[in-house]
Amino acid sequence: MKKLINAPEKVVEEMLRGMEQAHGGLLRVIPEVSVIVRADAPVQGKVALISGGGSGHEPTHGGYVGPGMLDAACAGPVFTSPTPDQMLEASKAVDGGAGVFYVVKNYTGDVLNFEMAGELAEAEGIQTDYVVVNDDVSVEDSTFTTGRRGVAGTIFVHKICGAAADDGKDLAGIKELAERVNANVRSMGMALTSCTPPEAGTPIFEIADDEMEIGMGIHGEPGTARKKIEPADSIVDEMLGKILGDSVDFSGAEVAVMINGMGGTPLMELYVAYARVAEVLKNEGVNVYRMPYIGDYMTSLEMAGFSITLLKLDEEMKGYLTAPCDVAAGRPF
Amino acid sequence: MKKLINAPEKVVEEMLRGMEQAHGGLLRVIPEVSVIVRADAPVQGKVALISGGGSGHEPTHGGYVGPGMLDAACAGPVFTSPTPDQMLEASKAVDGGAGVFYVVKNYTGDVLNFEMAGELAEAEGIQTDYVVVNDDVSVEDSTFTTGRRGVAGTIFVHKICGAAADDGKDLAGIKELAERVNANVRSMGMALTSCTPPEAGTPIFEIADDEMEIGMGIHGEPGTARKKIEPADSIVDEMLGKILGDSVDFSGAEVAVMINGMGGTPLMELYVAYARVAEVLKNEGVNVYRMPYIGDYMTSLEMAGFSITLLKLDEEMKGYLTAPCDVAAGRPF
Repeated sequence: MKKLINAPEKVVEEMLRGMEQAHGGLLRVIPEVSVIVRADAPVQGKVALISGGGSGHEPTHGGYVGPGMLDAACAGPVFTSPTPDQMLEASKAVDGGAGVFYVVKNYTGDVLNFEMAGELAEAEGIQTDYVVVNDDVSVEDSTFTTGRRGVAGTIFVHKICGAAADDGKDLAGIKELAERVNANVRSMGMALTSCTPPEAGTPIFEIADDEMEIGMGIHGEPGTARKKIEPADSIVDEMLGKILGDSVDFSGAEVAVMINGMGGTPLMELYVAYARVAEVLKNEGVNVYRMPYIGDYMTSLEMAGFSITLLKLDEEMKGYLTAPCDVAAGRPF
Repeated sequence: MKKLINAPEKVVEEMLRGMEQAHGGLLRVIPEVSVIVRADAPVQGKVALISGGGSGHEPTHGGYVGPGMLDAACAGPVFTSPTPDQMLEASKAVDGGAGVFYVVKNYTGDVLNFEMAGELAEAEGIQTDYVVVNDDVSVEDSTFTTGRRGVAGTIFVHKICGAAADDGKDLAGIKELAERVNANVRSMGMALTSCTPPEAGTPIFEIADDEMEIGMGIHGEPGTARKKIEPADSIVDEMLGKILGDSVDFSGAEVAVMINGMGGTPLMELYVAYARVAEVLKNEGVNVYRMPYIGDYMTSLEMAGFSITLLKLDEEMKGYLTAPCDVAAGRPF
């Protein structure tokens, strides 16, 4: 296992400390519960957005904490859901009296724990609601999931609902908007290589030197096909075909596009893939709105692979998508 | 070789097409010579900044083209210098009458070719000057280099001199500023794994499963020591020790800090490393200015590893470092 770490059991704690030291004016860490919150939380009168999940998907979710996106992120152990206690502490830290809204990726552990956290928070007088994001079109009922998995489309929920919360939208309004984004976002991923969680010390799956997995989940859950590596254009065609053939009609629409690297994919290759994505979308009459989002947004440690996400936009979403935000993942300069 | 590509010989061409399709309002590509230029080039009356080098280091350099940074980037084949012809065409495309300034990383091929391009451009009536960045403290006289190599510190030259050029500084002033940044910036890198250029199809070096290379160059040039993997804190201590022990006195200074991923390093690990960097710098009385730059700024394809860069700032540099810019690598949202 080749990792730049000190000890497998300290990775999350040390990562959080590094994030706080790097962006102290923006966020602070509650180390006892591995929660990152906005430095200025709670923001009075604003709905507070909370997300979270297993670690190992950075910059998801801590990198999206800040004005215009999340109020808090709960970091579980690598690839393992955070606990209801963590989520409750996050809720108490960021509630500004207008309630908290949980953005939950559809994994059974995450959903159960956020539901329980909501009950605990309500018992303490904090109003809560949540959305379960399930944008991955590749498979139904996966290893850790009933229904479809929640993947990179979640970032668009963070961005759009985060801006809406800053804009003063109330809890019911945030819920409606989050459901609307989720209803219009579709993703699919693939992997060329596996990855190794620090504490496990072994790859999450085996894959041959000439193989790839189409439809792979972000924790190595099996996809739709294990086959020989194909040219990037063929891979894009298959993934986009599945996304465009799903239940959202993207034809003629203005669409937010994300080409998300899984952590070990050179940016060069993401641009090679995007060249084909742009061509296919043009041929299909799908209009890319403003600019595509190309880079590592929701990773799986050092996995090589990528995902494609399309979100069909309406006018309200467009406004919130392009609103300013200030988060660690948004500060390259 | 596991890569998301169509054909090894088409990687650079397709990457550039993808970049242009993604950021058409910001940049355009001159495909005949693999040059990326600002969409609004030439900007009349402004010194034009040009950089370039072998591909495979993305977002270096094309990702830094745009207002506030570079006017053009010349993309060579993977890990191979672009030619004087490419640089000349870039110069002609972006010269706005105030001259062009080349930011050159110290590799023998790059230096010779940019020098020749300067002569060709001068013969066509374009005023030119250049800086050779040599920030890597690890070794003198490496595989492709006489003297010290130019690595991630180059990004600070792009940022600071790019802002200065937009601010109206003339060619002599840009030259002086670039030399001043270079005189005050020091970097060191390390690698856990090798990487595979698409056309070669084989790793650029071999390394055992329990080994790392301290002082590794961005093309796999040997460093100062090949040894067993150590904890992140020990690695950081060794690298920072060498940087702080070099000829720039960082003590008491305000310093720009970059923790640069080599392409295959999880962001989680860069934050683990930064936790130690912050601790050491605090103990040494070195003040991190504003925020550290943590992420993949100058990569080596899918190599796992990272580099640390420190730049001792003065007031003028601070202003230009924090000035707005709009480049592909600066647009996560």
